[in-house]
Amino acid sequence: MVTVQEQLKLAKTAAPSLALASAEEKNRALLSMAEQLEAHTEAILAANAKDMEAAKSHITPVMLDRLMLTEARIHAMAEGIREVVKLPDPVGKVLREITRPNGLSIRRVSVPMGVVAMIFESRPNVTSDAAALAVKSGNACVLRTGKEAIGSAAAIAAALQKGLPEAGLSPDLVQLVEDPSRDGARTMMTAVGLVDLLIPRGGAGLIRSCVENATVPCIQTGTGICHIYVDASADLEEALSIIENAKTSRPSVCNAQEVCLVHKDIAKEFLPMLNARLTHERASAGKAPVELRLDARAQQIISGTAASDTDFDTEFLDYILAVGIVDSAEDAIGHIAMHSTGHSDGICTRDENTAALFTAAVDSAAVYVNASTRFTDGGEFGLGCEIGISTQKLHARGPMGLEELTTYKYVIRGSGHIR
Amino acid sequence: MVTVQEQLKLAKTAAPSLALASAEEKNRALLSMAEQLEAHTEAILAANAKDMEAAKSHITPVMLDRLMLTEARIHAMAEGIREVVKLPDPVGKVLREITRPNGLSIRRVSVPMGVVAMIFESRPNVTSDAAALAVKSGNACVLRTGKEAIGSAAAIAAALQKGLPEAGLSPDLVQLVEDPSRDGARTMMTAVGLVDLLIPRGGAGLIRSCVENATVPCIQTGTGICHIYVDASADLEEALSIIENAKTSRPSVCNAQEVCLVHKDIAKEFLPMLNARLTHERASAGKAPVELRLDARAQQIISGTAASDTDFDTEFLDYILAVGIVDSAEDAIGHIAMHSTGHSDGICTRDENTAALFTAAVDSAAVYVNASTRFTDGGEFGLGCEIGISTQKLHARGPMGLEELTTYKYVIRGSGHIR
Repeated sequence: MVTVQEQLKLAKTAAPSLALASAEEKNRALLSMAEQLEAHTEAILAANAKDMEAAKSHITPVMLDRLMLTEARIHAMAEGIREVVKLPDPVGKVLREITRPNGLSIRRVSVPMGVVAMIFESRPNVTSDAAALAVKSGNACVLRTGKEAIGSAAAIAAALQKGLPEAGLSPDLVQLVEDPSRDGARTMMTAVGLVDLLIPRGGAGLIRSCVENATVPCIQTGTGICHIYVDASADLEEALSIIENAKTSRPSVCNAQEVCLVHKDIAKEFLPMLNARLTHERASAGKAPVELRLDARAQQIISGTAASDTDFDTEFLDYILAVGIVDSAEDAIGHIAMHSTGHSDGICTRDENTAALFTAAVDSAAVYVNASTRFTDGGEFGLGCEIGISTQKLHARGPMGLEELTTYKYVIRGSGHIR
Repeated sequence: MVTVQEQLKLAKTAAPSLALASAEEKNRALLSMAEQLEAHTEAILAANAKDMEAAKSHITPVMLDRLMLTEARIHAMAEGIREVVKLPDPVGKVLREITRPNGLSIRRVSVPMGVVAMIFESRPNVTSDAAALAVKSGNACVLRTGKEAIGSAAAIAAALQKGLPEAGLSPDLVQLVEDPSRDGARTMMTAVGLVDLLIPRGGAGLIRSCVENATVPCIQTGTGICHIYVDASADLEEALSIIENAKTSRPSVCNAQEVCLVHKDIAKEFLPMLNARLTHERASAGKAPVELRLDARAQQIISGTAASDTDFDTEFLDYILAVGIVDSAEDAIGHIAMHSTGHSDGICTRDENTAALFTAAVDSAAVYVNASTRFTDGGEFGLGCEIGISTQKLHARGPMGLEELTTYKYVIRGSGHIR
């Protein structure tokens, strides 16, 4: 087995050739990768069947479904790569151009990061998504998947690698980590000089481990304790519809709502509406009802589970919603400052001043007025793709697309200029 | 003595008020800070005299000069703050604005980082420079200076703090760390949730310590092993002038040249010229001559010190230049990839294709064609100021001005939009 260190060195060595590749060469490589992926459907499905067999006894049905590949899913992965071909090349853009009074020409130009390392959950399709975005942005990538998906991901990576030489590029530009141990992950986090950017995608434990251990530049992604505050001036029917969407349209994702804050002046009117909409009406319609976890004041108005100390700091990723009453928009802002993970938070209001205060004061990657938090997504934001959602402030915030996988350099031209 | 942790908490609490302050309020605070600085000249000079007395036995004359304050220098610091007032507000700029097909309005808006922590060398003036840039960019700042300057810096910070309430702002927005221990620095590096950005400025040891220990987002600055490659097609007289400037105009700074690479085809003509210009001619003119440290091939052409194994990996910060011969521009690029710190590297050439290859392939923050590396500087780049020079790729690269002290958030407005 090749070590992670060796894989990173191979990636580092190969990276400059991709950084210098033209948009046409990169697109040719991507089209070959898509073709090879489909050509290797059989081998990939066989590897996936083994992964499924090994995992079925100890992972949940939801995780098992994420792990499962079919011919249609492999085709969808290939189509995903072909979509990336259509996106504009993020490299080589002149981001700023100035000529100084002394005649010196200074251009700020977008360039690839170099080697991007990614650690992600046991979802085989992320392998091809991440590889396609890395290649398009001119970056070599070293990918590490969860151990349940390692056979499937290795088969996918092997197919993708076969596409690279067809465009004159090295197969070392896309690599899957073979070493499944924690040491392997640790190596990725600490390979200073070999890894230019580390992107962990996954649960809070992985993110925390990266923050604590990474000595390479790292972007935190993911964890979302998203709030929606229903202001005294809100359109209550609209608020109900936004909350039902934010909470229930896909509870397992990071942009799903976890906390609802309600202004005290409308709580008596709104909470019974919310309760009806999220519990009884959904149950009657055969949909999963939402369990409401209520703070002390909300409990005086509607019935539901009493919220525990931790419920306002939990990413439930389930049909559960913490509900609390606040005295004002300022109080809602204060609560969000204390409890939000800085992912996506919103307000329902018809008051322009309150909306302006909320959007200015809430320090999250995405701040919403009268819309569902579920829109925090590269596709929905018009980026055309997404490698992850950053919940920190350095370099990239919110959905990260191709542009966020690049950095820049200054190119300065003179004619014997000295200072 | 207040602990660093307590200081950071005070800064975190105060930060939102500054983030929401208008450009006028921030400028009013800055003008008051400048005024208070001058009003406290006497107290600052007294504190500085004590620092000088304590330090004079164990620091170099150059460092002692950096530590020393005079009435004129304090006035210059105040004028520096007034210059920052004139710069445009980097906060609240709409960086991108799109309306999606579904009518959702998405704006990407520049916002402050929050709390910026800085660790820097024993130069008292950095206290006011950093504080001014932090306030202008809407960030609370917690500053830690080298222990030799702590008395002077404390007196400066105390004066600056007096200016903040005059503009209705909290004095907690500008704080100097009182705890001089290494534990204090360690606290700044690991205060996850309290520090939004850590900027170390100083020697390689400090930067390495931050990279290894920081769990908060951190930008590496500084260390510069800068190369200039003299191509076969270079204008040799122009190259001499660029190299003399890059090496000798200020050898102690990070954008000074440390390594000269010369194409083999011109080495016999150029090296004697270089030797004459940097050694004999400078000595005759009463200027400090440059010691040339030569690789094996260069030693066959001119006399000088034989370069040791480490000379091509050393930031001399002195009148010393490592000189080597390469076979081609590609070899020069390869050498730079191996030995550069990614700060500033240049080429002297009259060949457009070679210039294009060099600027594309050299992966440094600033890549020069026919100009001195000494231009890598916020002021020279037209940023109006500089908080440091980033040598890493995340968030900011090269000179960091006000804009690089901000991040962004997305503000999304809908009318009941659900996904």
